Order: sequence, then C-alpha cells, then structure tokens
Amino acid sequence: MTRLLPRLFYGFLLTLPLLPSIAKCQDSDSALIHQMSDDILTRGMAYENLRTLCKGTPARLSGSANAAKAVEITRQLLLDAGADTVYLQPCMVPHWVRGAKEQAYLTMADGKKLILHVCALGNSVGTPAAGINAPVIEVRTLAELDTLGAQGILKGKIVFLSYPMQQTFVNNFAAYGDAVMGRVLGPSKAAKYGAVGFILRTLSMSDNDYPHTGVTGYDSTLPKIAAFAISTNDAGKLSTYLRLRKVSTLFMKASCQMLADVPSYNVIGEIRGSEHPEEIITVGGHLDSWDLAEGAQDDGAGVVQSIEVIRALKAAGVKPARTIRAVMFMNEENGGRGGEAYAAAAAKDGKKYILGLESDYGGFTPRGFSIGAKGAQFKKFTAWKSLLEPYGASLWVMGGGGSDVDPLSKVGAIVGELVPDSQRYFEYHHAANDVFENVNRRELLLGAVNMAGLIYLVSKYGI
Amino acid sequence: MTRLLPRLFYGFLLTLPLLPSIAKCQDSDSALIHQMSDDILTRGMAYENLRTLCKGTPARLSGSANAAKAVEITRQLLLDAGADTVYLQPCMVPHWVRGAKEQAYLTMADGKKLILHVCALGNSVGTPAAGINAPVIEVRTLAELDTLGAQGILKGKIVFLSYPMQQTFVNNFAAYGDAVMGRVLGPSKAAKYGAVGFILRTLSMSDNDYPHTGVTGYDSTLPKIAAFAISTNDAGKLSTYLRLRKVSTLFMKASCQMLADVPSYNVIGEIRGSEHPEEIITVGGHLDSWDLAEGAQDDGAGVVQSIEVIRALKAAGVKPARTIRAVMFMNEENGGRGGEAYAAAAAKDGKKYILGLESDYGGFTPRGFSIGAKGAQFKKFTAWKSLLEPYGASLWVMGGGGSDVDPLSKVGAIVGELVPDSQRYFEYHHAANDVFENVNRRELLLGAVNMAGLIYLVSKYGI
Repeated sequence: MTRLLPRLFYGFLLTLPLLPSIAKCQDSDSALIHQMSDDILTRGMAYENLRTLCKGTPARLSGSANAAKAVEITRQLLLDAGADTVYLQPCMVPHWVRGAKEQAYLTMADGKKLILHVCALGNSVGTPAAGINAPVIEVRTLAELDTLGAQGILKGKIVFLSYPMQQTFVNNFAAYGDAVMGRVLGPSKAAKYGAVGFILRTLSMSDNDYPHTGVTGYDSTLPKIAAFAISTNDAGKLSTYLRLRKVSTLFMKASCQMLADVPSYNVIGEIRGSEHPEEIITVGGHLDSWDLAEGAQDDGAGVVQSIEVIRALKAAGVKPARTIRAVMFMNEENGGRGGEAYAAAAAKDGKKYILGLESDYGGFTPRGFSIGAKGAQFKKFTAWKSLLEPYGASLWVMGGGGSDVDPLSKVGAIVGELVPDSQRYFEYHHAANDVFENVNRRELLLGAVNMAGLIYLVSKYGI
Repeated sequence: MTRLLPRLFYGFLLTLPLLPSIAKCQDSDSALIHQMSDDILTRGMAYENLRTLCKGTPARLSGSANAAKAVEITRQLLLDAGADTVYLQPCMVPHWVRGAKEQAYLTMADGKKLILHVCALGNSVGTPAAGINAPVIEVRTLAELDTLGAQGILKGKIVFLSYPMQQTFVNNFAAYGDAVMGRVLGPSKAAKYGAVGFILRTLSMSDNDYPHTGVTGYDSTLPKIAAFAISTNDAGKLSTYLRLRKVSTLFMKASCQMLADVPSYNVIGEIRGSEHPEEIITVGGHLDSWDLAEGAQDDGAGVVQSIEVIRALKAAGVKPARTIRAVMFMNEENGGRGGEAYAAAAAKDGKKYILGLESDYGGFTPRGFSIGAKGAQFKKFTAWKSLLEPYGASLWVMGGGGSDVDPLSKVGAIVGELVPDSQRYFEYHHAANDVFENVNRRELLLGAVNMAGLIYLVSKYGI
C-alpha cells in the first residue's frame, strides 16, 4: 500500500468524530469523549502500566507471592491515576500450586520415547509421585467418552479428549464455548469409567507447541485424576500415532496440589460522585492470572484499562455525578472469589449498584459492548452508540457481563462487557505466550477510550 | 477469562449467520456464503499460499528476480485454485535497486559516532560514492521546511523532517494520509532550498528500530538528493540531541539507483461467466513488495485472498453468471504500472468492467468495504450488508478503490476495497518486519470470506 494522497475514505474516517450528534446535549459529550480519546491515545498510561504489571508480577495466580505483589502495584497505580480513595477488599482465595514442571511422554511401540508439550489444567490434582504410565485412548467428544466408558474400555487408561475448537465459528468465543466443557467435565467423566489420567487437546485456534491451562473441575463423589492439556501440534501427532497403532503407553507426572485457602484482596479505586455518591458504577478486570505467563491479554489488559478510565476522567476534569469504581478482581481464573466478595459486600452496604462493566476479552481493537439489559434500558445504552462508534464501538449486543461483574446483577446492577475483536485471543489465552509483547498499544488504548466514554455517559446520565 | 458456560452473547454470535434474511432470495445466498466461510476457515489455502509467496519470494520489488519468480508462483497458485484461464499481462516496470546497505551515523559534538537505523526511501537516488557529511537541521512540518528554506538556512544541510504520524487519529490510515506528503514531497522541497540530503522520521505509529521505506518523488526541475527514513526511536534521539546541540554532523551513504525499465507482468486468473462473460469483475492485490521484507501484509495478503476467492467459488460449485478475474498487480509500490496496464487493456477490449475490488490494507480482521459508488448504486451494495455482517463486514463506506483498481473507474467500473482493522498495519508497512509470521491466519481468511461473498453477489446480480 503506497497511497500518496488522502482519499475520500480517509476523509470520511477523519471526520467521524465530528459527525452531527443526534441531540444537542450530545455535542458536549462528543467533545468530552473526543478530548479523552486524544488524551488516552497520546498520554495514556495503560500500556506502560501493563508493562509494569506484566514484568513486575507475571504469573499472578491467586495465593501466590506475585498476586500479593500485584495487589500493592495496582493500589499504587490507582493512586497515581488520581482515584480519590483506594482500598483493599479482603477475600479468601484458593491456593493451587503447579509444583515441578509437568512431564509427559509417549513410549512408542518400537520402544522409542517422544516428549510431549503439556501442562496440568488449573486445580488439577497431581499424579502419584512416580507418575502414571498407561495406555491411552482417544475420544473425540464427551459423548464418545460416555459411549466408550460404558463399554468398560477406559478402565485403567489415560483418556485423550481430542475435540478441537471449531474453526467454522467466526467468533472465537463461540468456538471456546462449544469446546470448554471438555476441559471442565472431562476429568471426572473419565474417572467415572475408571480412567487413571486425562489429557485434553489444548483449546486454541492455532497449531503450535503451547499447551494452554485453564480451570478444570472435579465431581466430589468420584476419584480425582490428574488432568493435562497437550499442545495442538502434539495432539495432532498423538491422534496420528494412535490411529497407526504406534503408541504403547503415555507417561504423565505432575506434583500440583490444592493448598488451604489464603487471604487476598480486590483492589478498588474510586472517584466519589458529586451528586449521587450512593450510585455506584463498577468498571473492572481481574488481577489474578494463570501461572504460565504474564497474564497480559488475560487480564492485565482489563486491569490497566479500568485504571485508565479513572486517569482519563480525572485528566479531563470530569467530576462525575455518580461514584465510579475501578475494581481489580482477584481469583477470576480458578475460583471467582473476588467477584463474589465484591457482590456480597454490595448486597450489604445500602448503596445502589447501577452498572458493572468488565473488560476480560483481551486488549484487542474494540468492536462494541455486550450489555445485560433489555427493552428501554438496552435502548438507553444504544442511544449512546453514535458517540462511541467513531472510536470502534459499533456492535452493541444484548448479552451480559463477565464472570466478575455478573454477580452484581443480583443486587440490581446492569452488567456488561467490552467486546473487542476476538481473532487472536485464543492464541494467548492461558498459555506461556500471553506476555506484554503480544499486546498492541493502540488496540489496548482504544479499548480504554470506549470504556472511559461509556463510564462517563453512565456517570452523567445514570441508567 | 475462564468462562465455563456458553452465554447469551455467544448464543447471539453463534446464530448471526442464521438471522432471518431481508428477502427470500437472500436465503440461498446466505447459505452459499456460509458454506464458503466454512470451507475457507477449514480448508482455505490463503495462509499456506502466503507462506509460499513470502518465503519463496520475499523482497518482490518490481524488476527484481524475485518479482519474476513470484509471477510464476502465483500463476501456478491460480491454476491450483481452479481458474479456467491463467495468463500474464505484460507491462514495463521501473527497476530501482537499493544497492549496498545504507549507512548513516551522527558525529557528535564530542567526536563520538552514533550509528542510526535508516533505509533509503524507494526511488531515491544514491549519495556520492563517498557519502555526504553535513550539518543536520530538524523541521517539524513541510511548512516549516519552507519557512526555514526561505531564510537560506537549509543550504548545504541535511534536512530532517520529524513530523510523526498523529496518534490521535483513530484510523491509522488517516494518520498516514496526514503525514505521507512529507515523504513524497520532502526531498525536492529540501533540494529547492539547497539541502544536500533528506531524512524522514519513519511513518509508523510505534516506537522501535525499524526504518520504513516507501516511495518518494522528485521534481525534475530540481537537483535530486538522497532521501532516507530513520526509525522512530532514532528520530526521537536525533531530535533530542539536536535540541541539546550535541550533534556536529550527519553522515549518510547509499548506492541506490534507478535502472532502465524492464518487462514484467500482471498475473490474471479467470472464471468465465456463464451468462454475461463480457461483464468483468476484478478482484486483486499487488504482487510486488518492497525489498526490505517479505511483503506479507503489504500485499501478499491481498494476493492470496484474491486467489482464495477463485478457489472458494470453485469449491462451492458456483458457476458465476459474470466473469471473475483475480489479478495480481505488478508495481503498485513504486510506479503503479500494473494497474495502469490493466486499465489500458480494459479500455480497448470491448468488455464491460463492472467492479474492481482490491485488498491492500493488510490481512487483518475485516470490518467492511469502501465502495466508490453513490446513490442507488451504493445502496445496491449496502443491501448486501446483512449477508456479510456475520463475517465481519459491518462498516460500508462511500469511498473508493486502491491505487491498482482506481484506474478502472475510467472505464466505468465501480471500484472498492476491503477495509480491515487498521491498528497494526503501520507496524509492518514497508519495514523489515512485514513477514509471514506477522499475519494471523484467521484474520487473513476472514478477509477472504468477505471478499468471496461480495464477489459472489456481484457475479450473480450484477451492479
């Protein structure tokens, strides 16, 4: 592309922020949002804050030393951003530890060994100290697991669930939703039929060597067996070798374990409302991350975008009518305790929680918002669409919030989420490559622009 | 993000391709486009073809051996894709060569030397064989260049134009349009005032060490001086050192030169129309690339997407009513001769050129189309929006085509372009990091889905 002259197309996009507003009162809103956009895109701190968070406290899994350190870091970042009040909200969190690096290899029919790229799924139990060595059986779906299990075929075996995320979904989150129950339910389903181990084809849309972790669950009435993810490349190889009957056994070994709950915190920074301080607008991301990487897209992005909302509103001189809280939720990944603690406190403090907005789909180019409202309330949101469309938010869907703000719907809040472009999310999700360098500065900042814009509007007009 | 259950939001997006169509006749179109999408996302060849093109023929600058080889490669890829006819359309192209790696360094006031990351701008002349060593003067804009030039200050100096792409533009192409004239006009403007060299702050939105090339121009009535780009990091350093009066001279040396024109080709693959073979629909990208990298985003992506349109239509069993041509244009980067040759042939062959659609904004997630039509004709396009929105094309703007298809408007064709997300484009544009690995497979394929859909609709219904 070697365009030499500005074109009609550029012209169109250049003037988008100046399009006639749909109502007089929107003119000043449009100008304010434009001002915040310019400020965030030039002086925004979200990208540097993400660097600080990712490099200072990678692997912020609940209960870890780095999670505790991240609490202190983000407390300071919220103060620097200009929050009136910053405080910690206690919650007890699970404390799962991965232990020594997991091992897995195939022993082939010809006696050779093939090392596999694996990781334990989050909350998995470990194997016996000597590891497990057993024949492996591939099942393509949970239904097939049941069928083969009922035939007694899985007893004493390691179950390999090879269901891939389906490429045909245009929205990758739909593909994730379609596949994730294998990760959550697979281990106990396999254990029910006497399997001794479980290994899952990694939930990713790409072929590479990264295994992706993520939470699994256990049925308390069944034996708990160790559960691994295997990289998509190795899953492909394993399928092929099994089909060709080249595999003798699979060895897997892990020392992960669930320790006793430990105290931790949500980190909260607030700008007190000038007219309706009792009406609370919550904007947040989750502070904890999986232990394999830096938690940059998941969810350092949402954390620093939420802090940026505070910074941008203060920088623009906005004195919000309603109280705005940026909340760094703890323990989204393997327990959800922070979101629960926040909602539990909200149920008791006599305040009115009007909106819970979350960013937990990664720091990619924003496309819109998912809003858990219907009818007139949903229309109130979409009336603001023309104000945020110039910054990317053109898709406004009736939906809901993320798992941290969803509990707020019980106290009457409308919950919602930033919806960014989804195509690259599952390249990084819960894998070792979810690092700062894989977040694009402008994409991250534009998400913050749209969040700041929506929070500003709700703080001014209410819901 | 550790969502466990499919949510309303997923549900919404899952069913998007099944939304009620706005007219009965759209039901079969919707199904056909859905079929092509599934095919492209699972069996599409665009990504592997891009690997072949980028790794087999990086640095496909017009007139180079790799450009000639790329002609042969894409001819074969079009045959493999199932085009009825594949042929080469001759055109003479400029043959600019970079020569030995450019050198540039600062001699500081204290005598130390500081090497700079630079490259010659495309079509630049070289320096004298010994290089140039001269004081350097920073100008922030072309207007300031004129002001200082009129004062006689630039005589004998190297002019450093430090105007950055403005971060405040939400659309990066608008920022490019705002800045690019400095690259095109800067060298001759500087020469007019007696400058001996020109160095441009790289057109990029990011701070790093990559200099980005791109075409410059010369006023034939003025001396031609060597023109370089300097990386954004080094441009920042240079500004600082100049402000602190720490710089003595800037040395620049390059042996680039423009050789005589050489013969080359557009590569064209066709599916002949069954009812109106004389109506021609053109879909294309440009085959040439700058010489510093693999030309993956610019514009290998557009090339392989255009080939994919042919493959997907054939795979879906579509027998188009009108003739569809995938065109790999030669010489977009530093001459535009391929586009001109194609339009010149079109003006003479008695056929009716109804649409020229280009993909030259990179293989990023598609957001929509820019269409050079107004009134009823534009409405005809936007009536198809609901059919392609499920695949990402929700933004339909009155605009135009890219520089390769624009000349077709002279023969009556409507011209248009795929508009993908723009945030990362200028990270790679004309720089050494524009490589295959920086193209996301799904983003690339989704662009092809939308292009195939639009071309299918135009081939069926005409304009």
